[in-house]
Amino acid sequence: MHIVTLLTDFGETDYFVGAMKGALLSVNPEAKIVDITHDVPAHDIEAGAFTLFAACETFPKGTTHVAVVDPGVGSERRAIVVETKDHLFVGPDNGIFGYIYERAGEYRVFHLTNEEFFRRDVSSTFHGRDVFAPVAGALSLGVSPEKLGPRISDEERLERAKPIRLADGSLEAAIIHIDRFGNCITNISRADLQGSLDEENARIAVNGREVKSFRRFFAEGGSGEAGEDACERKTPFAIWGSAGLLEIALNLDSAARSLEARRGQTIRVTRAS
Amino acid sequence: MHIVTLLTDFGETDYFVGAMKGALLSVNPEAKIVDITHDVPAHDIEAGAFTLFAACETFPKGTTHVAVVDPGVGSERRAIVVETKDHLFVGPDNGIFGYIYERAGEYRVFHLTNEEFFRRDVSSTFHGRDVFAPVAGALSLGVSPEKLGPRISDEERLERAKPIRLADGSLEAAIIHIDRFGNCITNISRADLQGSLDEENARIAVNGREVKSFRRFFAEGGSGEAGEDACERKTPFAIWGSAGLLEIALNLDSAARSLEARRGQTIRVTRAS
Amino acid sequence: MHIVTLLTDFGETDYFVGAMKGALLSVNPEAKIVDITHDVPAHDIEAGAFTLFAACETFPKGTTHVAVVDPGVGSERRAIVVETKDHLFVGPDNGIFGYIYERAGEYRVFHLTNEEFFRRDVSSTFHGRDVFAPVAGALSLGVSPEKLGPRISDEERLERAKPIRLADGSLEAAIIHIDRFGNCITNISRADLQGSLDEENARIAVNGREVKSFRRFFAEGGSGEAGEDACERKTPFAIWGSAGLLEIALNLDSAARSLEARRGQTIRVTRAS
Repeated sequence: MHIVTLLTDFGETDYFVGAMKGALLSVNPEAKIVDITHDVPAHDIEAGAFTLFAACETFPKGTTHVAVVDPGVGSERRAIVVETKDHLFVGPDNGIFGYIYERAGEYRVFHLTNEEFFRRDVSSTFHGRDVFAPVAGALSLGVSPEKLGPRISDEERLERAKPIRLADGSLEAAIIHIDRFGNCITNISRADLQGSLDEENARIAVNGREVKSFRRFFAEGGSGEAGEDACERKTPFAIWGSAGLLEIALNLDSAARSLEARRGQTIRVTRAS
Repeated sequence: MHIVTLLTDFGETDYFVGAMKGALLSVNPEAKIVDITHDVPAHDIEAGAFTLFAACETFPKGTTHVAVVDPGVGSERRAIVVETKDHLFVGPDNGIFGYIYERAGEYRVFHLTNEEFFRRDVSSTFHGRDVFAPVAGALSLGVSPEKLGPRISDEERLERAKPIRLADGSLEAAIIHIDRFGNCITNISRADLQGSLDEENARIAVNGREVKSFRRFFAEGGSGEAGEDACERKTPFAIWGSAGLLEIALNLDSAARSLEARRGQTIRVTRAS
Repeated sequence: MHIVTLLTDFGETDYFVGAMKGALLSVNPEAKIVDITHDVPAHDIEAGAFTLFAACETFPKGTTHVAVVDPGVGSERRAIVVETKDHLFVGPDNGIFGYIYERAGEYRVFHLTNEEFFRRDVSSTFHGRDVFAPVAGALSLGVSPEKLGPRISDEERLERAKPIRLADGSLEAAIIHIDRFGNCITNISRADLQGSLDEENARIAVNGREVKSFRRFFAEGGSGEAGEDACERKTPFAIWGSAGLLEIALNLDSAARSLEARRGQTIRVTRAS
């Protein structure tokens, strides 16, 4: 399997992405390079982590994913490879793989120390080209992650990659992404709303407002047709989004603006009494 | 033939394009994915239709083109495959293939109903990933369009995909695109200017101004050199553009601004008396 | 070897890049197309030349690079192929390959005159699609550059592609690029700082300010830790950048703003007395 995806915050104007691709193809000329995005906001590890997580699961077994949002390049932060059941991930150890750790089931992490697989003359400023791309090339050729360095178990996690279950059964969750339409993507997956707290009885509190209803799709009951009054149209609702996470949305409008929601903020999910 | 092109209005910042590519490669890991653009203005079916039309004809026989500008996703609009002599097209039935219908000669349209070729658990919000990409993967593997659903003949056309010939032989045409240089691309092809109304005698009326002269290339007679006075340099002219359609241009300036032209507006082509 | 890279100023919104890719794949369906960037500032030959130079050297031997920043399309400017020891380059003869000429060692230039390798019906406005892409397709299939047209030796160079050594041994150099962080990339390579004028004794004058110290990486001694006072943190320093050229940088700040530097301006490197 030769598929290698790239996700960076390098933008598309500079030579950085091109140089990474060349370094990768110099190791494996048969690699099939697939751009996920190069427009992650600069240095925004959380945004990169979410985009990678939401995009990667459709790829076939054996795909290698390179993610470079790396404000600490040149410092002591480690370079790592993560191996899950289906995929390999290459990048800095700074939380960029945080959602993968929470959702992938079992995984192993290796510290990239074997310089044999790096580009000769590694720069201190451009590990995307000099470390991550050539290592991804090696992985796409079938090199085993064990060959790249020792296994570690103290990888950097991402705070709030998943909700915290409190003693009373409620969830302390977070808004981890706000998309271009103003939908608020939370860190709540279907597994978090099973058992005593479920879709039927959950009440989601955001900045003092309460979201009570679930919908199956955006326009459901919200098209302004019979059965919905103006007030109902302006009521945010919960919906399972295409990334498999709970989103808070508003039909044809921005839920984020309506709720004054910000990325990273805490939300609370309790059982209706 | 494994070439599959993608054209969407998803932008390049989000996970949407990456997830589509993964879904496609999961069906056909050998697919050669080629991005046309992901920056079609959001929900602008006409702009997407023109860009697809102008880009697709250079591709080799057997190419599959996926076009997702789909404001009606999740509603009753149909998903379709269009088969022309040389290419296959996959997307929503909303006019996005309007120029293909007018220019491709014979074609057949199939309604995508066979869910066997969809991704399991089709979302109601992301058919690019769950319907169009996997179907394109299947087509690129050689699956026949007949297998995907019944043939239909009431596909959505695009208004003004080509000019209307009036009773007096004149054309009621339209400006379908204004490019970054201010050139106004019309829906007039060479076939529309043959016979009694031709390049020699055509007069194009735009907002009360008349365009009379044809040029072979932008700088022809318009470089400010001998033989052209200042007035001539500011006169819009007609030119066959690289998409094969008549454009109204102004050398080194914006014809759209000079003529106060807007995309979608009507223009009239009559025979000089 | 089937790798073909693309660098243009076409942007990613229009149909231009898609049409080029189709024209290339129509000649060689097995070509592996790699986008370097399509966001070179419109008509900015110097910016395109730098980006191409900085990105291309990581690619494997046998790669073909297409570069289209071509304000003179349709005029008398020549279309050319450049052959270096490792790579082939296709584009207009306007200086876009200026850094390649200075850095690649030996090279040969051919004037593209053999229309047999062009697209039929070459437009006067879109040589990217009609000339450069099909020629790159032919080169990626193994066609020899000699077949494409006669060798020439009066190719357009880029002014200031490298510094000028003055009689007193000092260098008259230039800032050829300012990156998004405000780092000023110069046209000085390691070979220019050997011998009597070297890293130890070089003093770089920019707009009346003097840069004296070299660093190995951006944060070296500049992290605000012990040993550096506030003044030192605001002092621009020289560093070998990832493109192999001398850069003038400021830790965590814009050297360009601090020095009021502009792209294209002259700088002077003299030996400390």
